Amino acid sequence: MSVTPSLVADLVGVAVFAASGASAGVVKRLDLFGVVFVGAVAALGGGIIRDLLIGAVPPYAFTHWEYLVVAVLAALLLFWLHPQFNRLRRTVLVLDAAGLGLFTVTGTLKALDAHVPAVGACVIGMISGIGGGLGRDLLTGEIPVVLRREIYAVASLLGAGVVTALARVHLNRPLLITGTALLIFVVRLLALRRNWGAPTPPDPLPPPDAGAG
Amino acid sequence: MSVTPSLVADLVGVAVFAASGASAGVVKRLDLFGVVFVGAVAALGGGIIRDLLIGAVPPYAFTHWEYLVVAVLAALLLFWLHPQFNRLRRTVLVLDAAGLGLFTVTGTLKALDAHVPAVGACVIGMISGIGGGLGRDLLTGEIPVVLRREIYAVASLLGAGVVTALARVHLNRPLLITGTALLIFVVRLLALRRNWGAPTPPDPLPPPDAGAG
Amino acid sequence: MSVTPSLVADLVGVAVFAASGASAGVVKRLDLFGVVFVGAVAALGGGIIRDLLIGAVPPYAFTHWEYLVVAVLAALLLFWLHPQFNRLRRTVLVLDAAGLGLFTVTGTLKALDAHVPAVGACVIGMISGIGGGLGRDLLTGEIPVVLRREIYAVASLLGAGVVTALARVHLNRPLLITGTALLIFVVRLLALRRNWGAPTPPDPLPPPDAGAG
Repeated sequence: MSVTPSLVADLVGVAVFAASGASAGVVKRLDLFGVVFVGAVAALGGGIIRDLLIGAVPPYAFTHWEYLVVAVLAALLLFWLHPQFNRLRRTVLVLDAAGLGLFTVTGTLKALDAHVPAVGACVIGMISGIGGGLGRDLLTGEIPVVLRREIYAVASLLGAGVVTALARVHLNRPLLITGTALLIFVVRLLALRRNWGAPTPPDPLPPPDAGAG
Repeated sequence: MSVTPSLVADLVGVAVFAASGASAGVVKRLDLFGVVFVGAVAALGGGIIRDLLIGAVPPYAFTHWEYLVVAVLAALLLFWLHPQFNRLRRTVLVLDAAGLGLFTVTGTLKALDAHVPAVGACVIGMISGIGGGLGRDLLTGEIPVVLRREIYAVASLLGAGVVTALARVHLNRPLLITGTALLIFVVRLLALRRNWGAPTPPDPLPPPDAGAG
Repeated sequence: MSVTPSLVADLVGVAVFAASGASAGVVKRLDLFGVVFVGAVAALGGGIIRDLLIGAVPPYAFTHWEYLVVAVLAALLLFWLHPQFNRLRRTVLVLDAAGLGLFTVTGTLKALDAHVPAVGACVIGMISGIGGGLGRDLLTGEIPVVLRREIYAVASLLGAGVVTALARVHLNRPLLITGTALLIFVVRLLALRRNWGAPTPPDPLPPPDAGAG
């Protein structure tokens, strides 16, 4: 394995997502194993689902130990340092936006390379970006935050669409990855700064359960 | 892609399941993205799990954009029209029963075609029918309704058994699909009308947690 | 199918895990179908995830009906006998530890046989052992108990590591399986008896939500 810029970027994403997962585990008072497990799911879950969907088994995270090791180390660090981590909250949100951009773009490209048609590839790209956070929230008993507020998945989906459109024109690939990951990153940061959110249901009166099983 | 009766029936099932998922999202006050995402999971989740289990990757929902588009449109409609949707509650339950029947039968046949043995094919058929609802409930923080009340999964499993038995006698396939989907549909509607349910545990005193990890 | 000692051991593990899942379903007042479904997920879920991760589809539980039948029968028995089951609590914990050991070891070996590298194979082995319990807890709306307390997954991971190390020296396979399953079993029972647990976060003040989607 050679240490390429792309690998370094990938592992930074893994570390940040692992810290976010571990942080959720600490809040729920999980034990050390639980904190590390939720951290690993947050960091690697999106990629694992992506690989299952495109038939790339065993998933990449199980065949490249450095991904798992980085996720575990980041979760352990968070476990012991979390009061300080807390003070880094703003930094974490910025790194998390970078991870979202990167995972979305590489996920979309992997799906396109696996001959998934355009619409499906966009969705798989988005799942690569948000899947880990979904897993983290399900494991800690929360309704996934990505379904409730802010422009997060929408930024990811937008970027996945741009990647898919540009992948057809045979653009230089490192340029394509960097550019579209940056686009997601910027949209996400703007959404955070300006408090953008998707609309919520117009009627505060919830309908009774539609009763479908 | 040609518009066949089978495709139309499939897409009606997708739309109804998407509306049920979106409805659950609205009740939980998710934002627009969350409502659409839960709708898509409810509509397509059963089929995606089915395809992962039989190794048909990428799953059909990712390679046929019309499924995703119909799911998203139905969820959007529900989002904006849900007070009216509410008045259609009875219609929705009927359509949902139709979707359950159809998804179960096509899922069972796909499993049999993939050489899954009879018992496993029945279970995969049932998962095709109820999997979307399970995903919807997990995402919205509910214990899946299909585990708690009414004859829903049981109707699905019954139909899957009939399909599996009849598939061996080389019956005309459209007839087989229509007939067994109709069987599930009727059993489900009877269960709704007569308030049939599976038995609940005989002893109201819950045992202490068995403590297994 | 011939009845080998390994098959008998496997089915004992299935039955015990099914009873633990069914027990959780009874506590949550699920109906009969729900109790059986959660029992089957607890018994077979770890192996199904394992098979999806290594690409062994359809998963073993769908192609060998005896696994499903044993899971369903054990869950049904629990449903009708659960007050008595309750008195057997200590026995169940012991059998559950045996199931954990066995599922971990066979899962690790299956992953190694599928050419998953060492670190990934250990994780897949652990997931084989704890995955069913995770599914059971997610379906019944609990934060998975394996993430919160006691040496359970850690015993599994330890055993998976030993299997992986010893698998390289071409040890006699039945001996390897028995020995390492026994190791996990003993560590788990010692943890139960001496109340060992993984450390919990050092700081009782939870940090605010890190806000990642």
